[in-house]
Amino acid sequence: MIDKIYCVDVQPDMEGKRVKLAGWVYRKREVGKKVFIVLRDSSGIIQAIFKKELSEEAYEKAKKAGIESSVIIEGTVRADPRAPTGVEIQADRIEIVQNVDFFPITKDASEEFLLDVRHLHLHSPKVATIMKVKATMMQAAREWLLQDGWYEVFPPILVTGAVEGGATLFKLKYFDRTAYLSQSAQLYLEAAIFGLEKVWSLTPSFRAEKSRTRRHLTEFWHLELEAAWMDLWDIMKVEEELVSYMVQRTLELRKSEVETFRKDLTTLKNAVPPFPRVSYDEAIDILQSKGVEIEWGEDMGADEERILTQEFEAPFFVYGYPKGIKAFYMKEDPEDPRKVLAADMLAPEGYGEIIGGSQREDDYNKLVQRILEEGMKPEDYGWYLDLRKYGSVPHSGFGLGLERLVAWVLKLDHVRWATLFPRTPSRLYP
Amino acid sequence: MIDKIYCVDVQPDMEGKRVKLAGWVYRKREVGKKVFIVLRDSSGIIQAIFKKELSEEAYEKAKKAGIESSVIIEGTVRADPRAPTGVEIQADRIEIVQNVDFFPITKDASEEFLLDVRHLHLHSPKVATIMKVKATMMQAAREWLLQDGWYEVFPPILVTGAVEGGATLFKLKYFDRTAYLSQSAQLYLEAAIFGLEKVWSLTPSFRAEKSRTRRHLTEFWHLELEAAWMDLWDIMKVEEELVSYMVQRTLELRKSEVETFRKDLTTLKNAVPPFPRVSYDEAIDILQSKGVEIEWGEDMGADEERILTQEFEAPFFVYGYPKGIKAFYMKEDPEDPRKVLAADMLAPEGYGEIIGGSQREDDYNKLVQRILEEGMKPEDYGWYLDLRKYGSVPHSGFGLGLERLVAWVLKLDHVRWATLFPRTPSRLYP
Ligand SMILES: [Mg+2]
Ligand SMILES: [Mg+2]
Repeated sequence: MIDKIYCVDVQPDMEGKRVKLAGWVYRKREVGKKVFIVLRDSSGIIQAIFKKELSEEAYEKAKKAGIESSVIIEGTVRADPRAPTGVEIQADRIEIVQNVDFFPITKDASEEFLLDVRHLHLHSPKVATIMKVKATMMQAAREWLLQDGWYEVFPPILVTGAVEGGATLFKLKYFDRTAYLSQSAQLYLEAAIFGLEKVWSLTPSFRAEKSRTRRHLTEFWHLELEAAWMDLWDIMKVEEELVSYMVQRTLELRKSEVETFRKDLTTLKNAVPPFPRVSYDEAIDILQSKGVEIEWGEDMGADEERILTQEFEAPFFVYGYPKGIKAFYMKEDPEDPRKVLAADMLAPEGYGEIIGGSQREDDYNKLVQRILEEGMKPEDYGWYLDLRKYGSVPHSGFGLGLERLVAWVLKLDHVRWATLFPRTPSRLYP
Repeated sequence: MIDKIYCVDVQPDMEGKRVKLAGWVYRKREVGKKVFIVLRDSSGIIQAIFKKELSEEAYEKAKKAGIESSVIIEGTVRADPRAPTGVEIQADRIEIVQNVDFFPITKDASEEFLLDVRHLHLHSPKVATIMKVKATMMQAAREWLLQDGWYEVFPPILVTGAVEGGATLFKLKYFDRTAYLSQSAQLYLEAAIFGLEKVWSLTPSFRAEKSRTRRHLTEFWHLELEAAWMDLWDIMKVEEELVSYMVQRTLELRKSEVETFRKDLTTLKNAVPPFPRVSYDEAIDILQSKGVEIEWGEDMGADEERILTQEFEAPFFVYGYPKGIKAFYMKEDPEDPRKVLAADMLAPEGYGEIIGGSQREDDYNKLVQRILEEGMKPEDYGWYLDLRKYGSVPHSGFGLGLERLVAWVLKLDHVRWATLFPRTPSRLYP
């Protein structure tokens, strides 16, 4: 390991100190007998000045270094208010680890091209910042989960049945049989509550959906929780506390990073419990009053959700959905059998659904009936039905789309920017 | 949420206090006009006594409750040294949430049967304990990674190329093309270091291997790290520090859980840096001196590794493997071109490989040559080769099999016991 210091750790009070830095050439210009290189590493940037009079060899090498070349630079620290970070390096050595004559990504690159060369786009500090925020949001989530007594579990991806409808399953040959890629860990988390009560997992989930919207990926990271003994209202409290902690903690740890993406932090700061709760019935009324053509019983798509979010300056819940538009595993509302005990959490500013949650049907016969109503076969859900035969308990859970949450927090125009290597119907490479 | 208290939180100093508990009937016996129920929840167990004289209704109900029935019990706390946990509940109420007449898992259940009903096996406190230890090991890993400045990233599972050889790839139809399930996130992590330098990920990895050994699963959780500017010796230090922290921290947080699985903690306590380092050449000498038929240049399988581990009372490294038995992306040893800069970490007590790591080939031409030597096509690795064209840097990384580490720590006889729902060539269900 070379004995290097990160850009961000070079401070004005280190004036005169000798340092070594390693990274990539971010910007470069020549003025008279000086070469200015702005060096980039994972922490940030710093300017290094190569004066011909100080070292002709270093000056000549620096002149030759192309943008995004990997370099190791040595010199002395000089505080200078004119430098981009208030401090710069008076450089007298440079090792060009690999010179780059022409880096394919230029300022006028189209979004499609950036996705084509995503492996090189990852050089971008802007992309790195999104990834740091995403990492911090998961760090925050885990802090909250640990302190609130949830156990992490590691459910399978290779499965034999659908959770969210067979139409969006990816199918594969598993030796001499057929497997599918998990759409959700939920059914397996439900099994885990009988030993651990409160469990969570973070897994990739897969949806073979052709929908080319701003909020769909064929592969996304799914944070799911499931708890014994909780009803819908209990799990909604968990949801708002978790999301609130993730957002507030991220503002605490990465405020400047968040601010490079959105100037107005109002809705983020507003994300504190209790989040507003709107019934599906009220949501339909609101939409109809705004001229949206939607009838009771119909699902809200991205467009309807976007209109609804205009009413709120914080994340909010819509609860009490009609049975017909929700999944088979959701518990029937004992007070209104047309409905299920389900709630979605919607992010404001047009983002819409970030969480889908519900109380689960814990009654064996009702669950079998629901499976039949959906045109599925109870025998395909044998082990899952067993969970309602051997010490069934009331329980609830939810799934959060991590990229959707990050997209809202950073006001990204598409969830794909919240992913290292996005997967969409047309993108599997790089 | 019912206002319940966990079994473990009922303490002798709560004598006389009224409590409510919820869980499952773990054991039951009747003595005279008393019913003793040992209640199980996610935290542990506690004994509840139902005396006919105290409440005939509760007594009669308790008599009927079968093993693994879900129940809610109320009563007063009584310290009693004869009770299994030193404290018990004088119970006067019981609600049987769901009665279980016959729970399919009995004491004489075979391992194969336990796997057939894994969804019910998750009721077992022993299984729950393994899952808790696994969760704590990842918690520990993340603590270390955060404090050492590594960024978490979320690489894709759906990929277009092999990392560890095409023979063990699971293949699927991805709309109008072919995708594979990731064998390792490594190539994507290598791309991420150009913006973040030190990255890690935890992903499911897949190997379509028919090998039915004690240490193979077709789906496992893979903790992978990749770092710019590090050579093989640097990354080996990272490996031993990380593994040591995971083990020592787990002993700190879950010692009693670990001790239910292994009485002798010596090798775990020995897992402190520096771990012994043995060259591949020395390893071959050791094996040959023990009568093993192995020649220089041959790979060590599980059997050879097991014999080698008899020499060590702690995890250790084997480094400097012949090129022919290692992956194409490993850097050629500049001092001996027959070898690559690779090291595996082996766990003692017969467990063998838990980590595979190496310095990566960062030279474009050498990497192309290695790909050709392996009979693969450079054009299939287009984006990966690009990483050696645009600001290439020396870098190293490794992958740790989480279930293998847990299996060693808990002395399990098969990695499948370290998995919520194990996947092997013959097991895809439940
Ligand atoms: Mg919806
Ligand atoms: Mg090996």
